[in-house]
Amino acid sequence: MIRITGVETLDLRFPTSKLLDGSDAMNPDPDYSAAVCVLKTSVDGLEGHGMTFTIGRGNEICAAAIRALAPFVTGLSLEEIQADMAAFSRRVTGDSQLRWLGPEKGVVHLAAAAVINAAWDLWAKVAAKPVWQLVCDMSPQEIATLIDYRHITDALTREEAVELLQDKCAGRAERLARMKTGGLDAYTTSAGWLGYGDEKIRLLCREAVASGWQALKFKVGRDDAQNLARCRIAREELGGGRHLMIDANQVWEIDEAIARVRHLMSTDPWWIEEPLSPDDILGHRRVAEAVRPVRVATGEHCHNRVMFKQFLQADAIDVVQVDACRLAGLNENLAVLLMAAKFGKAVCPHAGGVGLCEYVQHIGAIDLIAIGGERDDRMVEFAGHLHEHFVDPVDVHDGAYWPSAKPGFSVEFLRESAEMYRYPDGSYWRSTSGSPA
Amino acid sequence: MIRITGVETLDLRFPTSKLLDGSDAMNPDPDYSAAVCVLKTSVDGLEGHGMTFTIGRGNEICAAAIRALAPFVTGLSLEEIQADMAAFSRRVTGDSQLRWLGPEKGVVHLAAAAVINAAWDLWAKVAAKPVWQLVCDMSPQEIATLIDYRHITDALTREEAVELLQDKCAGRAERLARMKTGGLDAYTTSAGWLGYGDEKIRLLCREAVASGWQALKFKVGRDDAQNLARCRIAREELGGGRHLMIDANQVWEIDEAIARVRHLMSTDPWWIEEPLSPDDILGHRRVAEAVRPVRVATGEHCHNRVMFKQFLQADAIDVVQVDACRLAGLNENLAVLLMAAKFGKAVCPHAGGVGLCEYVQHIGAIDLIAIGGERDDRMVEFAGHLHEHFVDPVDVHDGAYWPSAKPGFSVEFLRESAEMYRYPDGSYWRSTSGSPA
Repeated sequence: MIRITGVETLDLRFPTSKLLDGSDAMNPDPDYSAAVCVLKTSVDGLEGHGMTFTIGRGNEICAAAIRALAPFVTGLSLEEIQADMAAFSRRVTGDSQLRWLGPEKGVVHLAAAAVINAAWDLWAKVAAKPVWQLVCDMSPQEIATLIDYRHITDALTREEAVELLQDKCAGRAERLARMKTGGLDAYTTSAGWLGYGDEKIRLLCREAVASGWQALKFKVGRDDAQNLARCRIAREELGGGRHLMIDANQVWEIDEAIARVRHLMSTDPWWIEEPLSPDDILGHRRVAEAVRPVRVATGEHCHNRVMFKQFLQADAIDVVQVDACRLAGLNENLAVLLMAAKFGKAVCPHAGGVGLCEYVQHIGAIDLIAIGGERDDRMVEFAGHLHEHFVDPVDVHDGAYWPSAKPGFSVEFLRESAEMYRYPDGSYWRSTSGSPA
Repeated sequence: MIRITGVETLDLRFPTSKLLDGSDAMNPDPDYSAAVCVLKTSVDGLEGHGMTFTIGRGNEICAAAIRALAPFVTGLSLEEIQADMAAFSRRVTGDSQLRWLGPEKGVVHLAAAAVINAAWDLWAKVAAKPVWQLVCDMSPQEIATLIDYRHITDALTREEAVELLQDKCAGRAERLARMKTGGLDAYTTSAGWLGYGDEKIRLLCREAVASGWQALKFKVGRDDAQNLARCRIAREELGGGRHLMIDANQVWEIDEAIARVRHLMSTDPWWIEEPLSPDDILGHRRVAEAVRPVRVATGEHCHNRVMFKQFLQADAIDVVQVDACRLAGLNENLAVLLMAAKFGKAVCPHAGGVGLCEYVQHIGAIDLIAIGGERDDRMVEFAGHLHEHFVDPVDVHDGAYWPSAKPGFSVEFLRESAEMYRYPDGSYWRSTSGSPA
């Protein structure tokens, strides 16, 4: 029996603000960071690694929340967790006192993701499979039991989940074979950060096209002329056959969003992402109705399955951008993938930052093989930062992810990286005069 | 000039779980707690006190978040804060890195409330007025400048706010006079906690009626027979002329909520509170349509103005239960009060816990005098716990709040109480063998 004997937390921060990597209209200077949860076990050398992503200040608050969740996993056996993963997920997200601090949103939910995903990493390592394969090898009934249906039964019951999963059983093997030869379609955000100048973005677009990218995403802001200039450069470099997506990172009001997107219509955006507050379901519906055929995307700040349920029920979004650690880990992601499949919408997982790409290759692969099936509007996000810090970094080339074949959930940091970027006492932070905060 | 020189945080916890005070269907054993923010100033002995309310475990996470916000207030002068309160509110809630952890929800937003309300306490102490009077003495234009309209301009612009406030200017003096003689209508939740037995609730109902309460709220759960039995006792003791409200604390699914409320129709509930996930705007609309004339109430877990905006736009709720520290302090509460006034809905602030009653007397008074005006469906919640720990405890009798005349926001704890209940090193916690976590 494998027992969880304790939880270690790490606060890792990378000084990305220095190069304006990751800059957008809402987030001018992020320091990509990870609050890490390591589940220690009774087996020597065996650990489960999970993390939640933040952009700097406050990463210590997420680490504190992981510590607050530690008593709910310490002492459990892996077998107990495997026997009822939905119950485990409820155990981590459902403590009434901690739930008060959300409920099921914000810091505590981000921390729950780190803990739940660490349990998945542990399970997958013991099963000697990558997480995506572990799930894709399960029966529809087994996958359906992974989910906590509380507050979404009006959109998805366990019976419906089983049916949806059974419908996709037949083609699993062919889709897996195609993924192994063709990869998982992806797009990159690395060319279009808001802090980059025109010359830099033109060069990066050119490089991206040369590297085989079929879709690029550009950050836009509150200056129509600048937005249009940037998108025109992108469209010129992309030509007519590739996709350009635009991302406003929540800085617009509703009428403003409609007007600003219309202003960019000539550059043929494939989707507009986060036009509004991520909580504004009814607002997204208004924008979606007004800017079609441009599709509306959101989700990286959509905090739980209840919010995604409503975005889908209201037909307020076309592109479902789940985040591996904004939702409470893989289990809640699966709930949203199933609802997206039911409502016929594309799942395009949010990534970038640090560790998100490593995570979402699994989510994209599970959606392709077991849930959403083949569709040409599924694209997994990619950004080229910080992969060198992982034991099992993503393999992305020719415009596609090539999902890991290594056991686990792929977010274990290299020991040297952790030592260097631990905040505030890692060697990098000790050697700099300033601090990111 | 008064300058903020530093921020002190306190983690105070009260062992309420021992008596099942505060028990409900979602929260069986809360330990009412406060994460306190004390703004130290350049003036000897002058401090601003704010707090956010939690129910125990995780209070330390909120305290950590208050510490993370401290750099955004330390060094400011009170004059700078007063000059542009909306900018101050944006400064506390809008740091891009900390905002990532919400945005505008969960732990960081709860902490922002403590900080922003502490600034109000400081301002009011310097002005030698209670907070409610400080606001009610402002002009419509001044009140309208307190609000950050980001992401709500489709429901409320500054111009509309000024108009709404001007409409209510004429009657301010009479309403103030009536409040001074008649108090602020209130209801109590203290009789109906789910953990109490039938005999205890009958006795408490009888006592409540004898004390002058005109409205009582009862917790209900997932047992129709028990719900009905409890509500019948309440109705018997209340007679026909008083209000009975019921509160499910989020434990139902949509169809279940409709059925369970219908099962209680014979006891004539005045409202059903938190029937569903607090995020489920569309679900609340379905319940509201199905159970009328029973009204639908929610808000104590409604995390920001964007969510309230949609509940109002969708006609999904009838009763707006703002929380003084779930929203980012008084400023965001004012935004919601104005939207409620525009949409014609009653504001019945959430209270109970520890410190919430002290807070919401101010919100209720502001709504009555300056925003919502006179209406017989405004009731401020009350629960009889833990008031003895405050320097300026609420005065509630004859079924009404009698708002404080003392300067400040009324949530400053007695020094002895803080010493005793500081967690984990206060004298109470050091002397008990167990811990609440």
